[in-house]
Amino acid sequence: MKRADRLSTIKPFRVMEIMERAAQLEASGRSVIHMEVGEPDFAVCKEISSAGADAINRGDTKYTSATGLPELRRTISDYYLGFGIEVNPDQIVVTSGGSGGLLLLAAALLNPSERVLVTDPGYPCNEVFAETVGAHVKRIPVYAESHFQPHWQDLESRWDDSVRGALLASPSNPTGTMIRRRELQTIVDEACDRGFLIVDEIYQGLVGDQPEYRSVLSLSSAPIVLQSFSKYFGMTGWRLGWIVIPEDLIDGVRKLAQNLFISPSTIAQRAAMAAFTVDAMAEHERRRKIFRERASHLQRGLERLGLAVPATPDGAFYLYVDVSASGMTASRLSRRLLDEYLVATTPGLDFGEVNAERYLRFACTVDVEVMDQVLERIAHALAQG
Amino acid sequence: MKRADRLSTIKPFRVMEIMERAAQLEASGRSVIHMEVGEPDFAVCKEISSAGADAINRGDTKYTSATGLPELRRTISDYYLGFGIEVNPDQIVVTSGGSGGLLLLAAALLNPSERVLVTDPGYPCNEVFAETVGAHVKRIPVYAESHFQPHWQDLESRWDDSVRGALLASPSNPTGTMIRRRELQTIVDEACDRGFLIVDEIYQGLVGDQPEYRSVLSLSSAPIVLQSFSKYFGMTGWRLGWIVIPEDLIDGVRKLAQNLFISPSTIAQRAAMAAFTVDAMAEHERRRKIFRERASHLQRGLERLGLAVPATPDGAFYLYVDVSASGMTASRLSRRLLDEYLVATTPGLDFGEVNAERYLRFACTVDVEVMDQVLERIAHALAQG
Repeated sequence: MKRADRLSTIKPFRVMEIMERAAQLEASGRSVIHMEVGEPDFAVCKEISSAGADAINRGDTKYTSATGLPELRRTISDYYLGFGIEVNPDQIVVTSGGSGGLLLLAAALLNPSERVLVTDPGYPCNEVFAETVGAHVKRIPVYAESHFQPHWQDLESRWDDSVRGALLASPSNPTGTMIRRRELQTIVDEACDRGFLIVDEIYQGLVGDQPEYRSVLSLSSAPIVLQSFSKYFGMTGWRLGWIVIPEDLIDGVRKLAQNLFISPSTIAQRAAMAAFTVDAMAEHERRRKIFRERASHLQRGLERLGLAVPATPDGAFYLYVDVSASGMTASRLSRRLLDEYLVATTPGLDFGEVNAERYLRFACTVDVEVMDQVLERIAHALAQG
Repeated sequence: MKRADRLSTIKPFRVMEIMERAAQLEASGRSVIHMEVGEPDFAVCKEISSAGADAINRGDTKYTSATGLPELRRTISDYYLGFGIEVNPDQIVVTSGGSGGLLLLAAALLNPSERVLVTDPGYPCNEVFAETVGAHVKRIPVYAESHFQPHWQDLESRWDDSVRGALLASPSNPTGTMIRRRELQTIVDEACDRGFLIVDEIYQGLVGDQPEYRSVLSLSSAPIVLQSFSKYFGMTGWRLGWIVIPEDLIDGVRKLAQNLFISPSTIAQRAAMAAFTVDAMAEHERRRKIFRERASHLQRGLERLGLAVPATPDGAFYLYVDVSASGMTASRLSRRLLDEYLVATTPGLDFGEVNAERYLRFACTVDVEVMDQVLERIAHALAQG
């Protein structure tokens, strides 16, 4: 059977090999420390769980509106209002995870053979969403010196006739760095004049105490925002997210959502209504602080070992660590850390090609006590060379 | 902002207008009988609900493997084995609804500008999945005389160089008719020689007591099967389905699933494990029989009123009714039934163009007592002309 050409452009996730190898080790009775997957280690908070189970128990599991329950869209709108940002609930489309949002946006904005600008390193699935709709990505290399984020000139110099817009992440995966507010303002003003600008704010809640901004929407109503209940709200396996789109995209995206999804999970939507309650938000804030502390703790420990974190993350729960001082490629070190020291990490090659073999991504999804064990094991690995 | 061209090819669902109009009527205090939406009226059975709530309560809500929980894939494999069909669990990919399966298959099988054969009338979203990946549909008109299903010659005569395969549904939405076994064997043999054949078996469980076949996989292992937990298992808002794919597609589809979905809903997957238990299956079978009785009841009633059901359905829970004897177009009759008689139905235009204004689709999602009221109201509508 002939398959679509795009299948050959999709690179396998290295992290999947890592996870399979980790599973083999665990099957043989060994205990692996998991710092490779972008999934919070906390259980989803009890307010969310209860609301989900209640929905099931009362039989509230039928299809909803394709763009999500009106009350959930109002609640999300109120969430933005808490940051002083006004968003019409009609501009909010509830999606099947952040993934569902990426598909809707790719389908709504990109024709076959057109291009979208993305960063390298960046979220690896972005390219697959573009390829799925027949389009392509054009990569902007970003470096530690510029905080792993692009300047407007980096976009402008690549913005040829094939480019319809840009998809940037703030905070970024894998680096956790945010686009500086002043730079973002320039990018918004210029990019939205030429085409679309999508800002992936999936890690938006997981930032420091005083972020420069809470959403790009505080700078302008023109950009599109991608969001998810997976990270800050911890609802990974529930598969729920949302997008904020300009008024003139509402009808088109609604038609796409009706056809491509019918509706997002009803149970997840009912559960998500409870994610914004006072008690749940207090718990999310507590976890946010823990993620910040863990990242700082790990960064200090790694730096003591001579490994650099050249751009201190502003958010998310990742550290993007320069391991070149180890004398090994990141792939090799990642493999050795797993095989010999039972610590799973994600090598930079999963996020692009730019300096990829210099970097390892650590997800700060273990306690500081476990991190201390990890640091000890890394010290051994480095000593052995 | 420039939008993708595909947005202008997507037709709005008429049924959405019907539903909005029905909601207006209900908001003004009137009670509407809903026969427009393809959603079982039964609550999801208690075994499924309990398993879903249990998963939430024990915190089993993290990401799963992108292709679904291995134990669920084994359970689905066992389900086929109950029909004497052997399917390797690795060939089963659990998806986010039947919708997720359609996206994976379109992305895996169709390049931009290639075509897939579909029937008219047929499931309207099929075209949008093709357009999403930059491909197109080529329509095969099907008529009551051929049971609203194509012969191989109908496919063969349209299978030019742009065509990569065919997507057929058995039982069909909107007509409920199955492809005859002998005809299907010819189609399988010929189509799988030329390209791909996807058989949408979303309504497969909802068939008569003695269907000619329980799955196309009993005829050959070459076709691809699309399935869903929404209809026979009643799990609409949970968003879960599966596909059965040939061995040589497994790697490609797995990579796509990892990138496009991360994983299907964990809660829905845990719940679906209980869908195949003895007690749950007994309840599903009871409901299957009720749907058959309702369809027969409504068909007899409509025929007494002079409206024809030219192809008696073999399954699903739909009646595709020729309303030309009313002297009205289906759109007009549908609108009048709603506005004046508070009965919501779906006009044929939602399913294609071929004789579309002659047909109304009724979803048999109300009790026979309510159907009798519907029949009385239709009698009035016809008498008024």
